[in-house]
Amino acid sequence: MLIRKATLSDVPVIVRMTNDGGPDGKPRETLPEILPPHYENTFKQIDADPTTSLMVAEIDGKIVGTFHLSFLWYLAGKGRPDAQVEAVHVAREYRSQGIGSEMMRWVISEAKKKDCRRVQLTTNRDRKDAHRFYERLGFTPSHHGMKLVLSTTRG
Amino acid sequence: MLIRKATLSDVPVIVRMTNDGGPDGKPRETLPEILPPHYENTFKQIDADPTTSLMVAEIDGKIVGTFHLSFLWYLAGKGRPDAQVEAVHVAREYRSQGIGSEMMRWVISEAKKKDCRRVQLTTNRDRKDAHRFYERLGFTPSHHGMKLVLSTTRG
Repeated sequence: MLIRKATLSDVPVIVRMTNDGGPDGKPRETLPEILPPHYENTFKQIDADPTTSLMVAEIDGKIVGTFHLSFLWYLAGKGRPDAQVEAVHVAREYRSQGIGSEMMRWVISEAKKKDCRRVQLTTNRDRKDAHRFYERLGFTPSHHGMKLVLSTTRG
Repeated sequence: MLIRKATLSDVPVIVRMTNDGGPDGKPRETLPEILPPHYENTFKQIDADPTTSLMVAEIDGKIVGTFHLSFLWYLAGKGRPDAQVEAVHVAREYRSQGIGSEMMRWVISEAKKKDCRRVQLTTNRDRKDAHRFYERLGFTPSHHGMKLVLSTTRG
């Protein structure tokens, strides 16, 4: 398995993979054949951010997983960053094969290389399987992940 | 109350404020009179990050609170970022006076101006007062905040 930064040409595959399986297991939305331009614009925004990377996991040239990895510095960290993972997804036909674990072990290894204090993420309370998955990797649910949804449609 | 980006000269005040009151209410560590250089280096690292700001709240020229505000873009956000708050602290002698609420209402207002999807943060499970504070502001503990501590000393 190869883990690398995503490129603009990966965006359609990532968008369709991420859309396939919301918290209820159903597609989040019906995607048009040709994706609207906001996806490309968002990719460029992410790609220009020096502290965040959109990553993909590839097997035999096929993208099987994706996640975001950010490094965040705080004064309390004494010069060491925290690593933050978000938007973790594995392609439906590749689930339950250890790909998620391999991606997260890669994240932990990168975080150690960068002398991070910790790796952090939030997982939806309804996703009990995801919760157990992260606990097996050594994560502790020490915090509440609190969200304030501002609006679900464009303002 | 004025909320503004922190400058290098604010760092000693922020560090001492943040140190005063870990999850158990005690100082996190004994700070030397002259702060080690990693604080200045970390400030420069944060200040160079276009997506994260270290903020201070000021009353009559005195710094009374601090927090980090980041904007994170995801493909699933359809061009809209999420706002993330971390490292929220109010100076001990200014607590329970509504300063935290005012800071968070400012964050929510900024997040709306930037057309954010949501504001997110994690709060330690042991801090039940903080949990209630964020619920009063409209936050929902919809997620588990999972942390994997890599090491507490420099590697």
